[in-house]
Order: sequence, then C-alpha cells, then structure tokens
Amino acid sequence: MAIHNDWDAPTIAHMACELVIGVDGGQTSTKCALVACDGRVLAYGQGSGLVHLAAAGARERHAAALREAFASAWTNAGLEPQPVAAIGLGLTGVEDNSPEAALARQIVAGLISAQHIAVHSDAYAALIGAHGNRPGIIAISGTGSHILGMNAAGELARAGGWGWLLGDEGSALWIGRSGLMAALHAHDGVGEPTMLEGLMREHFQVKALGDVKRRVYDSSFGAKGFAALAPLVSQAAAQGDAIAQSIVTQAARDLATQVMAVQRRLALPPDAPVAPVGGAYAHVHGLRAGFTAALCEINPQANVVDPLLSPVLGAALIALQACGCRAIIRTDAVD
Amino acid sequence: MAIHNDWDAPTIAHMACELVIGVDGGQTSTKCALVACDGRVLAYGQGSGLVHLAAAGARERHAAALREAFASAWTNAGLEPQPVAAIGLGLTGVEDNSPEAALARQIVAGLISAQHIAVHSDAYAALIGAHGNRPGIIAISGTGSHILGMNAAGELARAGGWGWLLGDEGSALWIGRSGLMAALHAHDGVGEPTMLEGLMREHFQVKALGDVKRRVYDSSFGAKGFAALAPLVSQAAAQGDAIAQSIVTQAARDLATQVMAVQRRLALPPDAPVAPVGGAYAHVHGLRAGFTAALCEINPQANVVDPLLSPVLGAALIALQACGCRAIIRTDAVD
Repeated sequence: MAIHNDWDAPTIAHMACELVIGVDGGQTSTKCALVACDGRVLAYGQGSGLVHLAAAGARERHAAALREAFASAWTNAGLEPQPVAAIGLGLTGVEDNSPEAALARQIVAGLISAQHIAVHSDAYAALIGAHGNRPGIIAISGTGSHILGMNAAGELARAGGWGWLLGDEGSALWIGRSGLMAALHAHDGVGEPTMLEGLMREHFQVKALGDVKRRVYDSSFGAKGFAALAPLVSQAAAQGDAIAQSIVTQAARDLATQVMAVQRRLALPPDAPVAPVGGAYAHVHGLRAGFTAALCEINPQANVVDPLLSPVLGAALIALQACGCRAIIRTDAVD
Repeated sequence: MAIHNDWDAPTIAHMACELVIGVDGGQTSTKCALVACDGRVLAYGQGSGLVHLAAAGARERHAAALREAFASAWTNAGLEPQPVAAIGLGLTGVEDNSPEAALARQIVAGLISAQHIAVHSDAYAALIGAHGNRPGIIAISGTGSHILGMNAAGELARAGGWGWLLGDEGSALWIGRSGLMAALHAHDGVGEPTMLEGLMREHFQVKALGDVKRRVYDSSFGAKGFAALAPLVSQAAAQGDAIAQSIVTQAARDLATQVMAVQRRLALPPDAPVAPVGGAYAHVHGLRAGFTAALCEINPQANVVDPLLSPVLGAALIALQACGCRAIIRTDAVD
C-alpha cells in the first residue's frame, strides 16, 4: 500500500490509517461506504434519496440525506465521527464540473471535515468501480439508461442518457413504455396480439385498455410509472410472448449499439471489458443474456464482465485516488 | 332538399329558411360556420382555442371561445344573433358520449337557443366532413395523430390517438421528436450523421446539442415543443438528408398501417376512400406522397382522396342531420 498524501493525519488512537468515504447518491437512497486507507471497507451507511439540485429545497434535502448516511456509517463502524482524508461522491443529476457539482461540494464541506472532496456523476463512480479505475465501459440500465466508457488515457465518452422523453433506450422505462405501446397497438389491431394487453389492464385495474390514457398523462406518472411496467414485459417474455420478447431483444440491441459507439469513440480494444450495471438486467427476463448476445453479434471479441466493485465502492476508490492512495478495496471485513 | 323537422321556426324577415351552426373546436382556435338549411354556407366565425374540459377554468374558457366564434359569425353574415335549428360540434379532448360531451352541451345551451345540440369529438366532425357522411377513413396528422373510420352501418373504429407519451405515430410531434432523437444519436455516434444535428442546434440556439436536454424537460415544452421541430425534419428531408427522409417514410408507413387496421376492423371495401387530414401533410415534405405510397403498397386498391368538406363544415353537416335536413353543403356563397 502506497499512500502519497501530504495530509497531516490526526491522532486516531484505535486505527493505524486514515479513512475515506465513498458516496453513491441516487434518487431512491444515498449509500455511503467508510473505507480505511489500506482498502478495507469498514462499514456502509444509508440515507434518503436525492432530488435534482436545481429543485426547490434540494440543498437541504441533500444535506439531510448525506448527514444521515454518514451518521449510520460511523455507527455501523463503531467509530466516532471524525475528519477523513477524502470523500468521493457519485451523485444522480450531477455532471462532472457542473454548477451542481460545485454546489454539492459546498454542501459536503459543511457536513464533514475532509482534505479532498471529489464530486462526480453517479455513472462515473459506477464506471470507476466496475473496472477498478481501468479502461472499460459500463452499460447502465436502471429506470433510465446510459453508457459510459473510459480509455487508458483517462478520456471519457458517453452515449444515451437523454432521459425518458428522448429515449433512454434499453432502460426499464423504455421497456415498460414499449410494452404499453405494444398493448395499445394490439388493442387497435395495429400490432400483433400480445398477453401484454391483459397484463396492462390488470396492472392499471381498468376494464378497457383505453382508460390507461388518463393515468399515464397524470403528472405523477412519468419515468417511474413507465419503469414500473417493465416487470409485466419481463413476465410476458418469460412466458413466451413473442411481442414482449421482441421488446427485450430490441432493448438489448439498443444498449449494445450504444456500447459500440462509445468503444469506437474511445478507440478501445475490441476485448475491453463491458459491465452491465443496474436493476433492469436482474429484473427483466432475458435482458442480460440478450445484451451479451447482441454485443457478441456486433463484436465477436466482446468481453462482458460483472462489475468489480459497486458504485459506492467506486466512489470510495475515487476518494482513495484523491488522496493519492493506491490501495485495493477489500470487502471481506463487512461482507 | 328535404327538411324533417318539427321545429317551429321563428319568423325571420330576411331569410327563407332556418339556420344551423357547425363548430370545430381545436386547441389553437375555435371555428364556426353558419349554414342555411338549404346547405348554403353563409359565414364563418372564429374564437380562441379550447383546453381540456377537466382543466381549471376550462368551462369559462370554452364559453368565451364559443361566444366569440358565434358573435363573429353573426357579424360576418350581417345577421342579428337568433335561435338556430341545430348546432353540431366537434371538440378537441371530447369523446362521444363522455362526461365532457355532456358538459359541453350544457355550456352551448347557455349561449344560444338551439333545438338540437350534437356534441362529438373533433375527429368525428372531420370524418363526417371528409366523406360527406359516407363510409371512409380519415388519417389525421396534425400536432398529434389519430385514425378514424366509419362503415355503411355507421359503425366507427379508431386507431392511435394515444397522445405524445404513447406514440401518436406519424404526427408532427412524432416526426419532430424522432428528428431530435436522430440528432442525439448522431451526436453520440450511435446513429448516422445527419444535418438534423446542426438544424437542432440552431433551432435551440445551443452550442452543444446536449444542452437541449434542459429545454425539452421544461414542463412548457411537451407535445407542441416537439411538433415545432417537425419543420426541421421537413427541411432536411427536402434537402436530401437520408435520416430525415427515413423518419418521414416511417411516419407515412405508421399512418398507413393504422389506416389498414381500421379498414379491417370495419370490414370496409379495399377502395373505401381514405382522406389525409391535418397540417402535417401540408407542412412536412414528402409525408402525403409517402402516405399514399405506403398505403398503396399494402393495399393496391387504396383510394386516397382529399376531404370533401373541412371539419367545421363536417360539424355543420352533423347539425343539418340532427334536424333531419339532407341538404348538400355549398360553399359558393362565402368562398
């Protein structure tokens, strides 16, 4: 372990090394990990979800979520809150070097004493975690979708991530919305019959499928409402419904196409690791297998891998780097 | 001309026959036509646009728009406001026999004395006008899209019209959004290069295409914001951009597919007339020709025709029918 750090460590009686914190701030929850500078993960903490920093009251909400996450991590580690060497954050709705990133840095600085504060997008933390800060690509498919890659020169390229109104192809919301549209097409006689028609009627508890229109146009529906329909497509696909299967296949292809675009733009070798990241791969029947198949069809040398580290540990890795520490993160102390 | 009417006409010194009114109530404006029971169109009137009747203040807004339209029609005809035999209305956001239709009827009854008030959807009035109350189909492509048909038994069938979040395939908003998505795909390296990338940057006056995201997610953007991008796709298609042309071709195919679904469901003969209706055909380069070509490809006997009458005169025809009058509408008095 090599620590390149000019930080004047406080005397910590019960620990031989300094600490860093990684934060994965998502819309559902804020996770944090307390990691020793030798790479041992000491504890995890959790707080409430974040909203976009431009939203009303977002500043207070971010501060509360982070305070909560930090506090539970200290408690879980059996440690008193104390200064840390660095904090790395991957936050939803924050682009690297944006006004939001500067604001997030301010908020964090008001909560905890840290020599380095590195604020990034949630996707960047996931990328650094997935490939342990080495070149590679992640294909995120959760509620939304987003492809991000990094080459050996540290250059980044992204594709997709334009949100629910402009695509997010291959994501849970895209799959769910495509399922509802396929059901409406079947209803109209425009598309082939599909069991999605019945599943959607049940889900919305309507007698006539046309009655879903009112619900979908309610302002509270949005991306999350569509994403909640993805399990119906998954169920129909698992039961052999050809329309549902074709939606999942198309989602997988769209993700693969975006991955290849990022690979080309970064001039990555054909066997650069590609990690599927996000809940849709676990919860949508056939998506992960379809993604691998679609990628191998375009690029026979495609190298689909599991992420090495979770996004929150990716953020911790960013923190370790920020204080010049090259430790390898080990989760054996908590897992 | 046969008038089957038990209405006791008031003595109108300067006119030999009774009057009906047709109303085409859209989101942009409310048009009305004053028609004599012998079918002569006497004058048109215009008022402001309508909002969905479920919206706050919609009742007052509808009343004001209709009052305005009626008043200008009377003025243009050089007549004093007077009772009419019937009013036929085709209104945006109103389904036949819906609570909104009942509410619209109430509003109209409070504004003018009429023996018959027939409230329908705007699409129904357009259909009745397009084929002079005879069997046929209309393929509406304006901001949104919607297919409606009627067979000889008077049965109706529709396809599409699910709105901007669920398709409206082939409409101006669909074409505009597809154009923006194609520009983003080109930007990401996911899709082929297209002049749409530059056109979209100019339209939004942004240096980096990625900056459009904020604008599109503003709550004021919506369907109209996307529809306003259709002229860019039209421009690029006219200049030979292959991506833009493929969007227009797909729009035309989607409309044709929906028309065929309605034709099948109504068991209409293959040469039943199909009328393209709405601004997108006039304003999007290649859409009308593409629609005809796509329809003829699926159905060699396809019979694409111009609408016989405008939607507002379709509404007037509904009014004439409501009072049992079989007159043929003639526009020579005003055109």
